[in-house]
Amino acid sequence: MEKYNALYAQSGGVTAVINASACGVIQTARLHTDTIGKVYAARHGIIGALTEDLIDTTHESSSDIAALRHTPAGAFGSCRHKLGAIEKHRRQYERLVEVFSAHHIRYFFYNGGGDSQDTAYKVSQISKELGYPITCIGIPKTVDNDLPFTDNSPGFGSVAKYVAVSIREAGMDVASMALTSTKVFVMEVMGRHAGWIAAASGLAAENEGDSPHIILFPEIPLNTEAFLKRVQECVKKYEHCSIVVSEGVKNTDGTFISESGLVDAFGHKQLGGVAPVIAKLIKENLGYKYHWAVADYLQRSARHIASKTDVDQAYAMGQAAVELAIAGKNAVMPIIVRDKGDTYGWSVGEAPLEKTANVEVKMPADYITPDGFGITDACRRYLSPLIQGEDYPPYRNGLPVYVKLKNLPVEKKLRTPFEIA
Amino acid sequence: MEKYNALYAQSGGVTAVINASACGVIQTARLHTDTIGKVYAARHGIIGALTEDLIDTTHESSSDIAALRHTPAGAFGSCRHKLGAIEKHRRQYERLVEVFSAHHIRYFFYNGGGDSQDTAYKVSQISKELGYPITCIGIPKTVDNDLPFTDNSPGFGSVAKYVAVSIREAGMDVASMALTSTKVFVMEVMGRHAGWIAAASGLAAENEGDSPHIILFPEIPLNTEAFLKRVQECVKKYEHCSIVVSEGVKNTDGTFISESGLVDAFGHKQLGGVAPVIAKLIKENLGYKYHWAVADYLQRSARHIASKTDVDQAYAMGQAAVELAIAGKNAVMPIIVRDKGDTYGWSVGEAPLEKTANVEVKMPADYITPDGFGITDACRRYLSPLIQGEDYPPYRNGLPVYVKLKNLPVEKKLRTPFEIA
Repeated sequence: MEKYNALYAQSGGVTAVINASACGVIQTARLHTDTIGKVYAARHGIIGALTEDLIDTTHESSSDIAALRHTPAGAFGSCRHKLGAIEKHRRQYERLVEVFSAHHIRYFFYNGGGDSQDTAYKVSQISKELGYPITCIGIPKTVDNDLPFTDNSPGFGSVAKYVAVSIREAGMDVASMALTSTKVFVMEVMGRHAGWIAAASGLAAENEGDSPHIILFPEIPLNTEAFLKRVQECVKKYEHCSIVVSEGVKNTDGTFISESGLVDAFGHKQLGGVAPVIAKLIKENLGYKYHWAVADYLQRSARHIASKTDVDQAYAMGQAAVELAIAGKNAVMPIIVRDKGDTYGWSVGEAPLEKTANVEVKMPADYITPDGFGITDACRRYLSPLIQGEDYPPYRNGLPVYVKLKNLPVEKKLRTPFEIA
Repeated sequence: MEKYNALYAQSGGVTAVINASACGVIQTARLHTDTIGKVYAARHGIIGALTEDLIDTTHESSSDIAALRHTPAGAFGSCRHKLGAIEKHRRQYERLVEVFSAHHIRYFFYNGGGDSQDTAYKVSQISKELGYPITCIGIPKTVDNDLPFTDNSPGFGSVAKYVAVSIREAGMDVASMALTSTKVFVMEVMGRHAGWIAAASGLAAENEGDSPHIILFPEIPLNTEAFLKRVQECVKKYEHCSIVVSEGVKNTDGTFISESGLVDAFGHKQLGGVAPVIAKLIKENLGYKYHWAVADYLQRSARHIASKTDVDQAYAMGQAAVELAIAGKNAVMPIIVRDKGDTYGWSVGEAPLEKTANVEVKMPADYITPDGFGITDACRRYLSPLIQGEDYPPYRNGLPVYVKLKNLPVEKKLRTPFEIA
């Protein structure tokens, strides 16, 4: 059986565990040297594939590849770039064939979210459209948890754990100080279109009075009056109020609150930061002293507090992608399938890329309490297993040791550079 | 020997390890029941002492008291309240004597920063001024690391670890995305008057190109031109730039940058948030896509990533406070003494409260690089030992298990309530 090389690439916003998937791909491929030759990685996702900017991972030691499992962010660089349709952008696909052909690449693994699976699907069509035999497998990844078919998306569980741990800790801080100082704390989390991450913070509230007291979801337009009433009730009842707000929360007219509040000294709108707007709303109406935090990239890169379940699943997706390719599958994406029954368990399934691309899964309506400010037991049952287990990285000098790969380039074989549109 | 009760209280901004000091106090007192009767805790610091709002810690189990060691925030509530001078506010001190006397309290342990040690010192004068025999021992605590005599302040090491870990992780995230997305990341950290916390983030930069690339200190007025030049250099050299900014960074005219940038829709100045102002400055002048984070309370409550050295020292300070009291000392505060020589080691010393109160220790000038944007090797040598070691809390359901004490009240014995001025 003739051996061909594989190309792995990372796409879209990176996570605490996308490198665990890379680890799964490379370690599994190294076990199947009878089928797969070298594993190359494209620098910065599909852009590296188009520009022939390839990395030869065979130069990386076994221990460095193993260390990818506990290293956050994208070890090979990621990108935000979608391939256009083949009919309109045929030259791009021809270029990919040139690169694949020049480097004997017949396996392509694309690790990303919905947009990236669209790219993976388009690449998978190359065999049919351009006659070059490429096996293309998508690998799921997104903190937004909005991919279809899979029970959850690798990357999400670790953000979920981070936000729940953080609001538990910060909420206790506020509770300690409330008598004479801060009474209201607002923590902003990611989630422009769906409230999955905000919802996960609700796992921290296990007993009456626990933080967070209020969650603001992008799914529920902010009812200012009801919200302020609830804040006041919390302060009266618990002396303080901890609020988690999704960056995507909207006014009743559908505009983002993050864009409605602040202007700079020149009158320009200030982008980003819904937490200070919410805090100010409370201050102006109720007068409470407040603090606010914006976790931003800290939440999605926090490998130090990653969910073990998430790490295991991210690794399994990378491993399964290679196994699917070896089994002759094409245009599929491995997925996480939750066991039926009360005890949490999961296995690996697969879904067709054609139906995976560009589909955004919303949070079920019955995951949000009728008042719009909390999560239901159904939501809790779904989310809780995803944050289980700790998987601490090694430390040196008091800091986590994250691997930096050599990332040695593959010698270019094409004479013409390629301009990304 | 007649036994008297002890009163312990927490004051000022709480930390990830102030309860470790409480644990040290209570566990040590429980070993000396021949000398110390009950340990009471004042609810919300000195306010609880004045209002006779006392907690009887004898109702707490050994395991719950032990769990204080890994529980962030203030288990008994803290406060921001300074006692006035005895000459002017004699009634307050008489009231303290009434409360102490009613509850057979002759040991007072006050756990806090500079302002709180001022209160502790004033309480220690009660014996002389009002003739009531009270032994008062201060216990150091502050994330600001600005207490005199002690090599470092309990609470600081854990914030230091948090900010260094966070910028390492978020910096890697930005590096992955820089080609097609965010190029500049700004993380705001605490430190209104001194740059200790911002400096600690510099520990994450161990190799050329590591984050953070630029640190902005409150000690160095922002030179906009030099700063923007440096940002541009970083982006050219490393494709991205990670910046840590202290909340207290100032303009060259001495005003806080956090107060200079934003107004709301009504033209009112927006308080807090220097990170968005810095991010916007970069965007407007250099055009780079940016993200920013404000860690706020997350940094000082992050017990999940506490420094073991910090936890050990916080505990030791509580333990030493009781031992000093039993040894007949008064008006002192245990301190951390760093061993001389190249290998880090520390022991417990003591300092007079009279000279501890209201003194703010600044960061040495030679801890900041001449360009004003980084830390020197001397700074690194001082800071590095303080973040060593991990001390993970136990987890249940994927979340850290923090103890919530019963906090049963001590029956009031005084007939008159007391109004706090």
